[in-house]
Amino acid sequence: MSETDLAALRERFQRAPFIADLGLELDSIGLGECVTVLELQPRHLQQNGVVHAGVQATLADHTAGAAASMLVADGFYVMTAEFKISLLRSAQGERLICQAKVLKPGKQFSFVEAEVFCISAGTKRLVAKASATLAIIAAGRE
Amino acid sequence: MSETDLAALRERFQRAPFIADLGLELDSIGLGECVTVLELQPRHLQQNGVVHAGVQATLADHTAGAAASMLVADGFYVMTAEFKISLLRSAQGERLICQAKVLKPGKQFSFVEAEVFCISAGTKRLVAKASATLAIIAAGRE
Amino acid sequence: MSETDLAALRERFQRAPFIADLGLELDSIGLGECVTVLELQPRHLQQNGVVHAGVQATLADHTAGAAASMLVADGFYVMTAEFKISLLRSAQGERLICQAKVLKPGKQFSFVEAEVFCISAGTKRLVAKASATLAIIAAGRE
Amino acid sequence: MSETDLAALRERFQRAPFIADLGLELDSIGLGECVTVLELQPRHLQQNGVVHAGVQATLADHTAGAAASMLVADGFYVMTAEFKISLLRSAQGERLICQAKVLKPGKQFSFVEAEVFCISAGTKRLVAKASATLAIIAAGRE
Repeated sequence: MSETDLAALRERFQRAPFIADLGLELDSIGLGECVTVLELQPRHLQQNGVVHAGVQATLADHTAGAAASMLVADGFYVMTAEFKISLLRSAQGERLICQAKVLKPGKQFSFVEAEVFCISAGTKRLVAKASATLAIIAAGRE
Repeated sequence: MSETDLAALRERFQRAPFIADLGLELDSIGLGECVTVLELQPRHLQQNGVVHAGVQATLADHTAGAAASMLVADGFYVMTAEFKISLLRSAQGERLICQAKVLKPGKQFSFVEAEVFCISAGTKRLVAKASATLAIIAAGRE
Repeated sequence: MSETDLAALRERFQRAPFIADLGLELDSIGLGECVTVLELQPRHLQQNGVVHAGVQATLADHTAGAAASMLVADGFYVMTAEFKISLLRSAQGERLICQAKVLKPGKQFSFVEAEVFCISAGTKRLVAKASATLAIIAAGRE
Repeated sequence: MSETDLAALRERFQRAPFIADLGLELDSIGLGECVTVLELQPRHLQQNGVVHAGVQATLADHTAGAAASMLVADGFYVMTAEFKISLLRSAQGERLICQAKVLKPGKQFSFVEAEVFCISAGTKRLVAKASATLAIIAAGRE
């Protein structure tokens, strides 16, 4: 992928207001794969100082959607039908990284997995894992 | 529950920075039940104008946690182990309401369901449904 | 529904070899709803005498599929994309009853919930709850 | 692990009546890992000739439980709290293989993943993937 293409995708990624508001940024994207990064701020936390599960779920869902969208035909877009997220460990640190990968692409829906890692003092730990089913929708029809 | 108690719970509810930042408010809470409300703003949306799944997931998770926390003994708190959310319909409107209810309380973990409704022009529609497993943790130990 | 129609559906229900082998029977079926019954036998159990989670999952999945199939157009059939099942309590007793209900029907997929109850000495208790996403597939195409 | 130990574990694995009845066999087991095999028979199928989702769910659940049980202390056992299974492809062939791996062990519960593969004419394909939360229970108490 050219630098120009990636820049365009980065810009498009931020068009979702909730994603821009949260501060989630696209790191890299490819066929059925996507990596995003969130610099943690106090407003992302629970009352006990760990990252809120809703923040992790948002990363997992949006990164999964981006990964799946790279494999759909022109004129189609993806929409999450459901996802499950397991919160393996408390997330506390400087940054979250989310890596999503399409497990099985399809014509009606795709199965995607997303892993959320937390970077703390240079250590990267898996803190959450999600599995999502994304519906593939023809544009202009729902 | 007295007005004073509910006011205290409302204040405590907002102590989670991500919840205060999102704008989620406690409406009512009881034994194993909780209702929360989110006045929708443009920053809660996806690029296509519907509420982001991450917003709905945050409501479901946090409201489920509040419902479950009403049934645990002193010295214990709850932490989401996992949740699944099904996104039944696009959510577009003025307000989201989340109603969570404990399906089965327990000593090690509780099962909770949460329904997310969207209010649009006076009509209330179920837009998402989540099921969560919450671990019950002794304070000062993890 | 006439007695003849229900008898035909009952017979069709048993055509799935695994369902016939397990002993699962159709009790009643309607638009987006289905109830099934399993008379428990020693072979349905775990080593500790409670019903195996796999048996409960089979009931939930198959009953959900039957409920969803009542709402699809001619020439289409349903196929489970995913399901989650929460095992609320140990199931021990004489009979399992599963009640499935379509939460939201759709053109590409339907969301269905299924509750598994255990009957023991005349008491009916909810032992498991499942939520499923079913794909709606055009016959002769996959 | 010695041959004798593995033989003892194999024998114990079959003590669950539903597992013995289904025909599921232990292939190998280690710390937080387990592999099981099911020789497919007509009675494992759906009416359309593919393996029933309930069969795949049983494999995933039981193999996940065996993997998790290898990491719990003496006097404790595991019990599935919930699992989700995504059915990626139709399973048709001679044999199912299930590989489970503990993603995160814990004191109160463990997170486990299980992959189900189908062997058909020498080709091994991933047909389902499950994620489970297993509660760790002190024996003699529930």
